[in-house]
Amino acid sequence: MVMTRSAAGGGPPRRRLAGWGFEGESYPPSESLLQWLTERLGTTVPFPQFDPSSFQPIEPRALPHLHCRISQDPMERLAHARGQGLPDLLRLRAGAVSALPDVVAHPGSAREIEQVLNVCGRSEIRVIPWGGGTSVTGAVNVLPSQDSIVSLDMQGLSTLEDVDVESGLATFGAGVRGPALESQLAPYGLTLGHFPQSWELSTLGGWIATRASGQESLAYGGIDRLLAGVEAIAPSGRLELAAMPSTAAGPDLRQLLLGSEGRFGVLTRATVRVRRRPETLHVEALLLPSWERGLEAVREMSQARLPLQIVRLSDEPETEVALRAGLADHALVAPLLRGWIRLRGIRGSGCLLLCGAAGSVGETEASLDRAAALLRRHGAVALGRRPGNRWLEDRFRHPYLRDSLLDRGIATDTLETAAPWSSLSSLARRVRKALESALQEENEATTVLCHLSHPYPDGASLYFTFFFRCPADVGEALARWGQLKRRATEALLDAGGTLTHHHGIGLWHAPWLDREVGSTGRKLLEATARTADPEGILNPQVLLDPVDRLET
Amino acid sequence: MVMTRSAAGGGPPRRRLAGWGFEGESYPPSESLLQWLTERLGTTVPFPQFDPSSFQPIEPRALPHLHCRISQDPMERLAHARGQGLPDLLRLRAGAVSALPDVVAHPGSAREIEQVLNVCGRSEIRVIPWGGGTSVTGAVNVLPSQDSIVSLDMQGLSTLEDVDVESGLATFGAGVRGPALESQLAPYGLTLGHFPQSWELSTLGGWIATRASGQESLAYGGIDRLLAGVEAIAPSGRLELAAMPSTAAGPDLRQLLLGSEGRFGVLTRATVRVRRRPETLHVEALLLPSWERGLEAVREMSQARLPLQIVRLSDEPETEVALRAGLADHALVAPLLRGWIRLRGIRGSGCLLLCGAAGSVGETEASLDRAAALLRRHGAVALGRRPGNRWLEDRFRHPYLRDSLLDRGIATDTLETAAPWSSLSSLARRVRKALESALQEENEATTVLCHLSHPYPDGASLYFTFFFRCPADVGEALARWGQLKRRATEALLDAGGTLTHHHGIGLWHAPWLDREVGSTGRKLLEATARTADPEGILNPQVLLDPVDRLET
Repeated sequence: MVMTRSAAGGGPPRRRLAGWGFEGESYPPSESLLQWLTERLGTTVPFPQFDPSSFQPIEPRALPHLHCRISQDPMERLAHARGQGLPDLLRLRAGAVSALPDVVAHPGSAREIEQVLNVCGRSEIRVIPWGGGTSVTGAVNVLPSQDSIVSLDMQGLSTLEDVDVESGLATFGAGVRGPALESQLAPYGLTLGHFPQSWELSTLGGWIATRASGQESLAYGGIDRLLAGVEAIAPSGRLELAAMPSTAAGPDLRQLLLGSEGRFGVLTRATVRVRRRPETLHVEALLLPSWERGLEAVREMSQARLPLQIVRLSDEPETEVALRAGLADHALVAPLLRGWIRLRGIRGSGCLLLCGAAGSVGETEASLDRAAALLRRHGAVALGRRPGNRWLEDRFRHPYLRDSLLDRGIATDTLETAAPWSSLSSLARRVRKALESALQEENEATTVLCHLSHPYPDGASLYFTFFFRCPADVGEALARWGQLKRRATEALLDAGGTLTHHHGIGLWHAPWLDREVGSTGRKLLEATARTADPEGILNPQVLLDPVDRLET
Repeated sequence: MVMTRSAAGGGPPRRRLAGWGFEGESYPPSESLLQWLTERLGTTVPFPQFDPSSFQPIEPRALPHLHCRISQDPMERLAHARGQGLPDLLRLRAGAVSALPDVVAHPGSAREIEQVLNVCGRSEIRVIPWGGGTSVTGAVNVLPSQDSIVSLDMQGLSTLEDVDVESGLATFGAGVRGPALESQLAPYGLTLGHFPQSWELSTLGGWIATRASGQESLAYGGIDRLLAGVEAIAPSGRLELAAMPSTAAGPDLRQLLLGSEGRFGVLTRATVRVRRRPETLHVEALLLPSWERGLEAVREMSQARLPLQIVRLSDEPETEVALRAGLADHALVAPLLRGWIRLRGIRGSGCLLLCGAAGSVGETEASLDRAAALLRRHGAVALGRRPGNRWLEDRFRHPYLRDSLLDRGIATDTLETAAPWSSLSSLARRVRKALESALQEENEATTVLCHLSHPYPDGASLYFTFFFRCPADVGEALARWGQLKRRATEALLDAGGTLTHHHGIGLWHAPWLDREVGSTGRKLLEATARTADPEGILNPQVLLDPVDRLET
């Protein structure tokens, strides 16, 4: 399975409207993977693909002057109507988008954002801050509303404003995307090291608003640790928190903006902790005899605080899929490998572990050697560097697979959580069971993969990928997804997991927020929102509105 | 200078009323140090020492039934009237305490605390949560008030409630003190690793409420990183946040309780991240040629992320005092040392650097070797392990010195801040200058020592100790201190420092909170306080009340 990119040159790549990423790129499934999925799910029929030329634009409502560049182009409004959750993709592909922003505003400065908020506050116009539009929780979604809606596109604030090389601090406009952020740091030999799967599209402001974690968070920390200072503009005023290595000057308001999803203000600028780019990054692949042995090994590595960059343990089904997906040239290698690992006492496919280290060549080797020594004690078999390199090459491309599968009628979505080590094993079991049984009444199967990533000394994140047969009717497809999502969410909360480790609350997790923070916690957050935004114009349906909108 | 402890056995040590720590313990200054101070400050007269038998108790007001054990004993009320800031010490020693709590409540459970808050809410009685009473910002102080005042002593909630060894998590009642916390973890081979100077007296709840950092925060993190889960009881309800390795489920309310100083609720229980006790802890002492070279070296070590436990760099005056205070057997060693370091090109006393590592013996040696190699490139001269061992032995005793100096009429206090590396050098200079010149109009000198500790990749904390001649009149002494504190605080904020790195806001930093979070930040914190505590009964003068109370 190789990512293909159209050779059509000229101009920057264009965002795809009803799918992930850029036009001309794709990541089609291997025949082996399709066969594996069809065996489990049954035969499927392709899901429709909307033809943009058939789009019947909803007329925008008239708006007062917003004091910045705006667009009411129907395609641009459509592109800002939905994020990148599976329901968004289904609706966009089916042409079933029921509301658009009335205008897309393109402010070029914090001052212009203040003016937009002033105008909108006076006229009860809702404002949805829009970074990269990659939310998988409905956090940028436009829903039918009596109020007019402005989608506030943050692209205009995306420059590197200051670098303090001595302190390892860099200040960016919040609309900067991953590649532009790293390329502006490159001349200084610096990196932020924040690489979520959405990196090519998502923004610094979006990472902060959703408390994102990158794939190398083990070394760099999540955005909550990378953020040193921040500026936000709320209807009630500007909040500026200077970059500090640490402070005890009262509760940390940075941590209140982290995860605030636009409810407490529009993030306009952030100072982040950057460091020297490592000379090299190597990812080793290994097979562990079982999921339980793998959990033990990863826990031990995390608690020993080995200086690693990436640790990612797949369960047996995900390992099977990874091998079929070509991570280790399955057709050629698999039979040989199987014989070898059977000799080593690994039954089934074993569990794939990716283990990465970075630094100077010497440091990297030393770290990987320490990890390998520990892993051997847990029965690990080394697969070399090829699978890891393949994973690194493709790591931002995996979301394209979802579109290709939907073309074939297979829906796939992911969900993630985190918990202390003592809960992880039963948490994985219970979420798997909930997903596998959710569609039983309809006699539909669900196929579930799981991996552990973002390990900490006290616990780790679990990331689930699930597949189901997608009905061609969008309403039925959404109902099926809603059923899966509800069952899995209840299961993960019942098993002691957090509602989300790195995707935020948005619309779709909001009904369960009380399970996380209780009614007292909700009251504190609501009071903060009311104070920051007395008219309730800032993205009022996300985070704190508990209505179940999974199918809307 | 050796800490002395009276040999009088029997019973647990008793807290001293008008001074640091326990009765029968002291840490008298060496003759050499006294001489050094007298040379700089001039001759002094002893500051009074209050005789408790002469105390005229203020009559307590009648209170409704509080549903838990209470005390109205005058000495216990006096012991709960003030923290451990220099103004508290001056007032207690002078018998000039103008208000006492009407009652000291000793709840034994979260349920009892709820009942106390219910009663107090109905009757407009103020509640001041009291952990170890070691605040140096006035955070537990009782001020004259129309309202009745309950000091809520948290000692009754101090047991280890749960240990999750697999995850490295331990749940304690918030009233547990440092030694009791560590001794309850010891049977599991675990440690929290949080060792603030107040460790023997201060509590887990107090550490959280003030965002404390221990002396080994470089390895373990401050309490903000050690806290995984927490429970607080506010008048408006109970807030329970489960222990999670990390979560993106909205803004992190744990970080809102950290630093809340009782304003948002009474902390009743916390789950903290614990780890294996290291086999060994070694602290090397070195001399760096200058403060600037030292800053550079420590920055390099921090940014290289060397696995160290303690890094502490003294400026030249503090180095001089440390040597005189006996850290390196001054009289014997100093002349030999001087000759040696002069040969190595170090003028003056050089700057003392303590550099500690922990782990297995092998890991510790390896870490110290890496540090030593880096430090040699900055011209460091090794002094061996004796000064470090001496510092470790005495590290919780240093506060006793303050009382002994006051007996001789020398007042001493400390203040601390943090800032990015690029600001540290000028920050140190400006705060020193502000302190040295603050009493110029009175023709009084101030002697200032400074060290860097708690280094981070992006900055560090600076800790200042200052000495001045203490007038025998408590009002004059407070005025002198207030002048020093105001000038230093303005200087550190002007120079880009944070108001406090690990002592919290309390009463005395509150006038400057807006410099840290702005008026919008203040509004958000006020809204949170109003929501958690609608009647405003919880310690209403700390954190958010901007009145200058330095001399009250």
